[in-house]
Amino acid sequence: MVGYAFMGMAHSQGWRNARSFFTPPIRPRLTALVGRDREAAADVADRFGWQDVETDWRSLLERDDIDLIDICTPGDTHAEIAVAALEAGKHVLCEKPLANTVAEAETMAAAARAAAGRGVRSMVGFTYRRVPALALARRLVAEGRLGELRHVRAQYLQDWLTDPSVPMSWRMTRERAGSGALGDIGAHIVDLTRYLTGEHLVGVTALGDTFVRERPLPEGGGTAPVTVDDAVVFIGRLSDGTPATFEATRCATGRKNAIRIELNGSRGSLAFDFEDMNVLHLHEGGTDGDTTTRGFTRILVTEPDHPYAGAWWPPGHVLGYEHAFAHQATDLLIAIAEGSDPEPSFEDGLHVQRVLDAVQTSVERGSAWTAIDPGVPAGSPPPTKEEPIP
Amino acid sequence: MVGYAFMGMAHSQGWRNARSFFTPPIRPRLTALVGRDREAAADVADRFGWQDVETDWRSLLERDDIDLIDICTPGDTHAEIAVAALEAGKHVLCEKPLANTVAEAETMAAAARAAAGRGVRSMVGFTYRRVPALALARRLVAEGRLGELRHVRAQYLQDWLTDPSVPMSWRMTRERAGSGALGDIGAHIVDLTRYLTGEHLVGVTALGDTFVRERPLPEGGGTAPVTVDDAVVFIGRLSDGTPATFEATRCATGRKNAIRIELNGSRGSLAFDFEDMNVLHLHEGGTDGDTTTRGFTRILVTEPDHPYAGAWWPPGHVLGYEHAFAHQATDLLIAIAEGSDPEPSFEDGLHVQRVLDAVQTSVERGSAWTAIDPGVPAGSPPPTKEEPIP
Amino acid sequence: MVGYAFMGMAHSQGWRNARSFFTPPIRPRLTALVGRDREAAADVADRFGWQDVETDWRSLLERDDIDLIDICTPGDTHAEIAVAALEAGKHVLCEKPLANTVAEAETMAAAARAAAGRGVRSMVGFTYRRVPALALARRLVAEGRLGELRHVRAQYLQDWLTDPSVPMSWRMTRERAGSGALGDIGAHIVDLTRYLTGEHLVGVTALGDTFVRERPLPEGGGTAPVTVDDAVVFIGRLSDGTPATFEATRCATGRKNAIRIELNGSRGSLAFDFEDMNVLHLHEGGTDGDTTTRGFTRILVTEPDHPYAGAWWPPGHVLGYEHAFAHQATDLLIAIAEGSDPEPSFEDGLHVQRVLDAVQTSVERGSAWTAIDPGVPAGSPPPTKEEPIP
Amino acid sequence: MVGYAFMGMAHSQGWRNARSFFTPPIRPRLTALVGRDREAAADVADRFGWQDVETDWRSLLERDDIDLIDICTPGDTHAEIAVAALEAGKHVLCEKPLANTVAEAETMAAAARAAAGRGVRSMVGFTYRRVPALALARRLVAEGRLGELRHVRAQYLQDWLTDPSVPMSWRMTRERAGSGALGDIGAHIVDLTRYLTGEHLVGVTALGDTFVRERPLPEGGGTAPVTVDDAVVFIGRLSDGTPATFEATRCATGRKNAIRIELNGSRGSLAFDFEDMNVLHLHEGGTDGDTTTRGFTRILVTEPDHPYAGAWWPPGHVLGYEHAFAHQATDLLIAIAEGSDPEPSFEDGLHVQRVLDAVQTSVERGSAWTAIDPGVPAGSPPPTKEEPIP
Repeated sequence: MVGYAFMGMAHSQGWRNARSFFTPPIRPRLTALVGRDREAAADVADRFGWQDVETDWRSLLERDDIDLIDICTPGDTHAEIAVAALEAGKHVLCEKPLANTVAEAETMAAAARAAAGRGVRSMVGFTYRRVPALALARRLVAEGRLGELRHVRAQYLQDWLTDPSVPMSWRMTRERAGSGALGDIGAHIVDLTRYLTGEHLVGVTALGDTFVRERPLPEGGGTAPVTVDDAVVFIGRLSDGTPATFEATRCATGRKNAIRIELNGSRGSLAFDFEDMNVLHLHEGGTDGDTTTRGFTRILVTEPDHPYAGAWWPPGHVLGYEHAFAHQATDLLIAIAEGSDPEPSFEDGLHVQRVLDAVQTSVERGSAWTAIDPGVPAGSPPPTKEEPIP
Repeated sequence: MVGYAFMGMAHSQGWRNARSFFTPPIRPRLTALVGRDREAAADVADRFGWQDVETDWRSLLERDDIDLIDICTPGDTHAEIAVAALEAGKHVLCEKPLANTVAEAETMAAAARAAAGRGVRSMVGFTYRRVPALALARRLVAEGRLGELRHVRAQYLQDWLTDPSVPMSWRMTRERAGSGALGDIGAHIVDLTRYLTGEHLVGVTALGDTFVRERPLPEGGGTAPVTVDDAVVFIGRLSDGTPATFEATRCATGRKNAIRIELNGSRGSLAFDFEDMNVLHLHEGGTDGDTTTRGFTRILVTEPDHPYAGAWWPPGHVLGYEHAFAHQATDLLIAIAEGSDPEPSFEDGLHVQRVLDAVQTSVERGSAWTAIDPGVPAGSPPPTKEEPIP
Repeated sequence: MVGYAFMGMAHSQGWRNARSFFTPPIRPRLTALVGRDREAAADVADRFGWQDVETDWRSLLERDDIDLIDICTPGDTHAEIAVAALEAGKHVLCEKPLANTVAEAETMAAAARAAAGRGVRSMVGFTYRRVPALALARRLVAEGRLGELRHVRAQYLQDWLTDPSVPMSWRMTRERAGSGALGDIGAHIVDLTRYLTGEHLVGVTALGDTFVRERPLPEGGGTAPVTVDDAVVFIGRLSDGTPATFEATRCATGRKNAIRIELNGSRGSLAFDFEDMNVLHLHEGGTDGDTTTRGFTRILVTEPDHPYAGAWWPPGHVLGYEHAFAHQATDLLIAIAEGSDPEPSFEDGLHVQRVLDAVQTSVERGSAWTAIDPGVPAGSPPPTKEEPIP
Repeated sequence: MVGYAFMGMAHSQGWRNARSFFTPPIRPRLTALVGRDREAAADVADRFGWQDVETDWRSLLERDDIDLIDICTPGDTHAEIAVAALEAGKHVLCEKPLANTVAEAETMAAAARAAAGRGVRSMVGFTYRRVPALALARRLVAEGRLGELRHVRAQYLQDWLTDPSVPMSWRMTRERAGSGALGDIGAHIVDLTRYLTGEHLVGVTALGDTFVRERPLPEGGGTAPVTVDDAVVFIGRLSDGTPATFEATRCATGRKNAIRIELNGSRGSLAFDFEDMNVLHLHEGGTDGDTTTRGFTRILVTEPDHPYAGAWWPPGHVLGYEHAFAHQATDLLIAIAEGSDPEPSFEDGLHVQRVLDAVQTSVERGSAWTAIDPGVPAGSPPPTKEEPIP
């Protein structure tokens, strides 16, 4: 695994818990952790049980005892590492966003296609797909429980950049991060919209803002300009014509990690908020007939017949943020063992990249309507009623 | 009062309750109710205590015992009645939207300005301004409790047109209603945004949809085309640069009257949903310093020191939809007695009309960015810290 | 009507709205309001449209233009007025609790039985039975939707006596009020338990507390002892064996009017909180079989097919505290017109009085188990599946 | 560690995560797992990284590489294992309830006192004390934020025994489990009440029920009698006189793991529900003065300045059920390293046992008031304002 910070720890926990709580056909071993700061990496490795520590990701390519490379580094390094790993015959799990530019993402998707021909698998880390409540949401949509889709309403609200004294980091520079709230968190709601609905965005119009334009350097001694957005809002149309609204911001004071998604259909609706991540709200039965007992049902998604939930604790013993990483790891291991292509693919990651690109273009062109290259190959499977969820 | 249907009953209740629970300097008398169907109007008059019934609104203009005309008819009749009433020296309360076109609204605003010079007052019925939780919200914003504004997120979600078998009515025809969800309910969230923030929209980009294009005639025997929108979504900028998102729909299955408004500022946030109308959620104190006990506070807006609430029942004895009509009536009576111009003025109604017009223009031009004529005269008062709320 | 304070205004509004929004066979006229302070009573009469003002309730008995007497005075006066009114052939609506003692309540119930034989009707004002969400709850229980009852959990939480500087009033003296939180608000949850379940309490064990033992006199100049409870908690068994817990307090800081009732049955559950009075939470389908989409459904009780709701506004246009008084008035008028005995009867009020008495006895005897005289005559109808709700 | 089922897995995860996310002075090693079924235990050991597997807990006593024994077996075995372990000089973490009888618990508490004299530590696994929201609740109470305590309202609601076809297990037999809902889940709310308030119960009156008296044998071929309670409700007084209500049930249809605790004080209130375990609701400021913005604040307990939370993920990245086991393990390791007595002690476990015993006695004696032996030695520390929480 490359990277040992926030995402590195989440992925470590994911691999380990996949082994402890699930029964994938392949049991993962935590072989080597890569970090340029050997000491810091060694500490994380010791805490999580990684056998070795390396300081250069290239060394992983040559090791025979490594079958899969998990990329948890900033976005500007994804393309180089992923392409090299796939060419070296290693399966790849790559954190999102897939890349910082459409061009990089296209290269990666091409490399993934080529590798798949050789049985080498790749997956992009839109981990929220594996939150049980959202996996259940997709299952319900695929079963037609909502009828025809009418509205998508998606927000990802955080507030950690509200305070102007929060110092600069790589996440606020365009060269390292590609964009700000857009790529960091907006990418998730774009992907979730596709995941939940089976449709993709075909065009958008957008507004972008950087509320705090200078931030103090973390080491002190002055400030540096923020070169990415603090917030974007955009509206667009899905491939079936559904209107959709999106908002991604790091300045929504009081909202900590509020991924809020609502779908309205002709027969029902769904609502989700990550701040109450074990819960899915479902409205069924449309608006006609006997409405006496209709309303949104608060489903506590911890029952044995819910996606992933049965592997953990009894009902009501709720899961947390990191559990989705174990689900992601498990699904990838199953796909590798079965010889199938895991989802979300690099192609899916490329689609998200194209949407991010269109949003930025619209922002730069005064909210002009910006079409999105379909980018969805014919073979991409829509959600089906039989979900391969453990 | 002209009109005796849904709005006519709500206004009757408002006038009556203003007299019963509040102490405006002028006590209203329910003198005459106008309806073309005399029998139906007489029934409503008897139920609510109106002394007389008339079948032609023009007869009110000549009566000396009538000082104020309350217009509760469809939008296409507002301009004619209101202008005639103002010219006859009657104060006017006119239901929203002010008119069906900007041109009509301009005529009405001009008539209102002229009448004000003669001491004749006019007000447009954006009644939700008088919901105690929203009046409290405005007070908190005006006091600077949120700091600098960052985001406005406004939705008005209903679902009564989800079912395609719901029959046609005047609300689904462009000639009578001007627009669909846009003018009927979108107008409210446009006005509330202005009321709460003191800022106005300067431009928008929009999508509009009519999901059900034919509906059965109420009398049977075929269908008629729906000529208005079922839903609009739009994003725009306020006069201080704040990005704002809007959604108005009658097809959000499971949402009955969900006016949902969230404001995020640099020091705090507010959230409101009309389906829980006695509650305002407030986050204070920004994101820095000691965050141990910070979060959204659920304020049950029924305390004696809350706007309007003290006139009614003890704390926790919640209010309902119609109470805002009593508050609106009371505020108008106070303004008339004091010789001040009540708010929202016809000028405010004209501003909303301009926004509705810009949204429709953007929809028709492929979501092109559409600027909004400022329409906000220099004299229009911004919210201040001393609110004249009883 | 006798009394013009808080309850007097609520009842005035109830009678008036029954006329405006409902269509009972008899349309009520607001004939005379009684208050010892003529000036204060005259002001209320003028505001609400009462024709006359009287200063002695006895004068009502002799008036031929009065058919019904509504008693909104403190509990120590109920028996005398009600018995006299019934004997004079006037129908009676009496505020709860029916009386301050079991003996008084027995006298009243006997008078009511005798009067019923002469076609004179009586009803006790447990108004919360007429909250649409609770009327719906009763209908669902009566339909068997919950299966066999397992648990009742009932709380009535207020906080207006938390502050020791709140002055004395008649509500804090045993002679006037009979008891404190117990009779004032505990009476409601005892009655609602009976209403919702169709069962009655057969025994209790209780704790009682007076947290603030002296309060300032309202006119200043010293303090007076509080002679009633601030809070009681008790557990008991219903006639079908179900265990039930109760809590009534005026010192639950932050809870304003939280009537919270939960029922758990073998096939489903219900939950209600008056602070969100338009909502009923329903869980159906037990715990076996496919549990994927099970959970508590948040029913917004404002649909046309909900009890009482159709007479008011469109769905989602929520009701408030006072609306239940209109429903109560309407149901009483229907019963009088139909010649049937309205519910809750004085017999029902007597049952509640017996429970209150048993709770006080248990408190005084060190939480000893105290049986409750059945007090439920054979003829009292259990909830049935066909509710006579408009 | 002894036991490898539900609790064994939760504890394994706790020890491992204490090492990964926290920095206790002693880093735990997972040395040996004990299970009578060697194959099943070996599978769990392999999944979680236990080095060895043993089939007899006695073998742990003799191993020098084991310093601490973690007991995750049914209650009837706790006393024997714990006493032997303490006498062998091993620190002990023992699952709750401490024992099945007061006598056993007294023996264990005596053994713990004796061992403490030799520097050998013991702790009982009331793990919910380590849920961040509840640790925060205790801190706020200890800081006096609630003022004087007025009410405790505690419920532990589950529904997994609602369905009569759920088969027998050791948890439904008195010999193995001691009691039913009472000891299994009621024990938690008794302990949490003591933890949060610093007070202990001095007497109770109770009702108990077994709704389903026969259950099918898991292996088929008939049924067996259920010899424990399905539910208990009880009320009691704390050592400072506060009235408290309790309910523990496995038949509250729709409630999965609802540990609901509310405290009301003269200056503020707290509310918690484990089904939304990352949230604590706090009301501050009493009921006097300016109440305009008062209400319950929904604190998302995931900030760096919240107990335990900073060691995990960024704000809003919520925790789940198992995280408290890592907190418990960390606190125990800190206590061992520091040479202090960890809490909750065996003495605390004995107190809970005495309360359970009193509840059962009251149930058996017709809800008679039953005093509880103080059982709280003078030296037991009340909550203080400086919490030793990492």
